[in-house]
Amino acid sequence: MDGHRIALDVMGGDYAPHATLQGAREALEAWPGLRLFLVGDLARIHPEMERHGFTQELLNRAELVHASQTVVMEDKATCILKEKKDSSIRVAAQLVREGRAHGVVSMGHTGAAMVASSLVIGKLEGVDRPALASVLPNMKGGPTVLLDVGANVDCRAEHIAQFAVMGSVYATEVLGLERPRVGILSVGEEDGKGTDVTKDASAMLRQMEIRFEGNAEGRDIWNGNFDVIACDGFVGNVVLKSSEALAEGILNGLRDSFMESAITKFAGLLAKPAMKRFKKKLDYAEYGGAPLLGVKGVSIIGHGRSDAKAVRNAIRAALRAAEHRLHERIQERVALLLPQD
Amino acid sequence: MDGHRIALDVMGGDYAPHATLQGAREALEAWPGLRLFLVGDLARIHPEMERHGFTQELLNRAELVHASQTVVMEDKATCILKEKKDSSIRVAAQLVREGRAHGVVSMGHTGAAMVASSLVIGKLEGVDRPALASVLPNMKGGPTVLLDVGANVDCRAEHIAQFAVMGSVYATEVLGLERPRVGILSVGEEDGKGTDVTKDASAMLRQMEIRFEGNAEGRDIWNGNFDVIACDGFVGNVVLKSSEALAEGILNGLRDSFMESAITKFAGLLAKPAMKRFKKKLDYAEYGGAPLLGVKGVSIIGHGRSDAKAVRNAIRAALRAAEHRLHERIQERVALLLPQD
Repeated sequence: MDGHRIALDVMGGDYAPHATLQGAREALEAWPGLRLFLVGDLARIHPEMERHGFTQELLNRAELVHASQTVVMEDKATCILKEKKDSSIRVAAQLVREGRAHGVVSMGHTGAAMVASSLVIGKLEGVDRPALASVLPNMKGGPTVLLDVGANVDCRAEHIAQFAVMGSVYATEVLGLERPRVGILSVGEEDGKGTDVTKDASAMLRQMEIRFEGNAEGRDIWNGNFDVIACDGFVGNVVLKSSEALAEGILNGLRDSFMESAITKFAGLLAKPAMKRFKKKLDYAEYGGAPLLGVKGVSIIGHGRSDAKAVRNAIRAALRAAEHRLHERIQERVALLLPQD
Repeated sequence: MDGHRIALDVMGGDYAPHATLQGAREALEAWPGLRLFLVGDLARIHPEMERHGFTQELLNRAELVHASQTVVMEDKATCILKEKKDSSIRVAAQLVREGRAHGVVSMGHTGAAMVASSLVIGKLEGVDRPALASVLPNMKGGPTVLLDVGANVDCRAEHIAQFAVMGSVYATEVLGLERPRVGILSVGEEDGKGTDVTKDASAMLRQMEIRFEGNAEGRDIWNGNFDVIACDGFVGNVVLKSSEALAEGILNGLRDSFMESAITKFAGLLAKPAMKRFKKKLDYAEYGGAPLLGVKGVSIIGHGRSDAKAVRNAIRAALRAAEHRLHERIQERVALLLPQD
C-alpha cells in the first residue's frame, strides 16, 4: 500500500468494534492519504463492515488482518508476551515492527498497548522509558502536553529530561506549536523548589536547544502558560485521573443543579447549546488519544471510553505523526541529551 | 482567659486586616466558648475595631497583642527565624508555645506559618514532618482529607504512614467521621501498584488500628470513596494547585458561555441561584482552612484569598480541634507507629 499506513486495534475499547470501525470509516473518508490495517477477530469484524458503510472505494485503502485473541481489562499488561501473543494489539504492533505499518492506534488496555509498543515495536536508542503524553485542553483554548501520565514510577532526572524533549518534539511536529514552552512540574516557580530529581532534570534541559522555562506548578497544567510539562509518571497519572474525576464531578453537579426546579430546567434548556460548545472545549476526544513517545514508530493510545469521533481523531494524530516522521525527529533530539564525549 | 483560646494572625492574608477582623468578630458572636488573641500591628488594628462591630461584650473575650512586623508574600518562609522575629505569625505561634493559646490561625504566608508552627510551637514526638491537610469537598457531598499538600518533598514510607494516621485522627475528631476510610495515593488500586515508598507505607498501616483500605487513585480524591488520602507533599501540592486551577477554569468558562447571547444571558439569570448553591458546595472556605498536623498545638493555615467567612470557619476548625485536644489524640496514635521493642 502507498501513503501512510496505520494499524488499528479494532477490538480495543469499551465500544469496540463498533466505535473503532465507525471511526476508521470516517478517517478513511476524511484523509485520502491514509491507509489502514484493521486488526482483530475477522469473524466479528467482517459482518460489521457493510453496516458501518465501508464502500469498495474505502476498502481499497483498508486491509483486514486477523488476530484470534483480544486483551480484556482484567488481563495483565504483560499477557501479550505469553498467553495472548495473537491478540489484536500485539498483531497490530507487529505490523509496525515489520515496517508494514508506520504506526499503531489502540483504545484498548493501556498497559498492554504500552507493553506492545515498547517491546514489540521497540524503544528508540537513547530513550530509557517511553512516555505516555496526555494532550489537555488549557484555559487559553490551546493544548498543553503533560507527560509522563503512563505510570512510569520512580523516574530519574534523565528520564524526566527525555520526557521533556520528546514532548517538545511532539508539540512542534504534531500539534504545530512553534517553539513550545517547556516546563518541569514542581512545587514552586523558583529554581530552588522541587526534588533533587526535578532540579537535576532542569539542569540537563538548560543545556538543550529547547525553550525551557523552568519549573511549572500544578496550576500551569491548565492556565496555558506552558505548552509541555514533564513529570514523573506517578504524579502525572495521579493528576490526570484526579482531573478527569473533578471535571466530570463539576459538570454533573451543575447538570443536577439545573434539575432543581421548573425555572432552572427552563434555563438549562436555553443554555444547552452554549454549554455543549463549552464541554466540547474540554473534550479529550478532540485531541485524539495519548501518544506513547520514545518507540520506533507511531503509537497512539486512546481512552477506553472513546467513541467514533475519538477513534477518528486518534487516527488523525497517528497520521500526522507518521507524516512528520515523529519518531525520527525524537531520535535526533534525544541523542543530544546523551553524554557527549 | 477561660474557654478555648485561639491566636489569630490578624495581618495575614490578601484581605487583611479587614477580612480577619470581620471573621474574628463573627466567630466571637457565634461561639461563646471562644476567646481570641488578635495579633498584629495595633496601630493598624485599633482604629478598625469599632468599624468591624467589636462591642464591649465581644472585647471581653478578645485580647490584642502587638507585633511590629508582617510577613509578606515575597519573604522567605524562614524569615520569621531571623529578620522577622516580631512578625504577627511568629508572635501568634509564640502564644501557643507559652501555653497561653491552644491554637493559631493564619491566612498569611503558608510557608512562614508552617515554619512558625513546626519550629516555634514545635513538633510532636514521633512526628518527623508536620503535614498540611487540605479538606476537599467530594462529589458525595462530604469532606475528603488530602495530606500532605504542604510540599514535604521526598517523603519516606514512615512519613506517609504518619500522614495517614494524623489525617485519620483529624477526620474523626474534627470532622466527626466515624471510622474514616484511609488510603494511600497511588497509580492503581492493586496492592502491587505504586512505588517502594507507597508499598512500605501500606505495610506499616496494615498493622495499625485504623480503617486502612489500601491504594487510592487520583479519582478517589473526588468521588467520596475515601475519607483520608495520604501522599508525598510533592504530589499533594501539585494535585491541589492543579485542581484549584481546573475548577476555576471550568466555572469561568461556563460563566463566559452564558455571556454568548441574550438568550444564554437570560438563562444564566434564571439559573443563578442554583449555580450559586452548587458553587458553595465546592467552596474551600466552607471547611475553613488547612490544618497543619503534627505540632504541639492547633495550627490552621487558611488560603491567602480567604474572606471573612473563610476566616470565621478557620477559627471554628481551630476551636473544634482545641476542644477535642487534637494534638494529644494524634500523639497517642502516632506513638503506635513507632517501632515497638
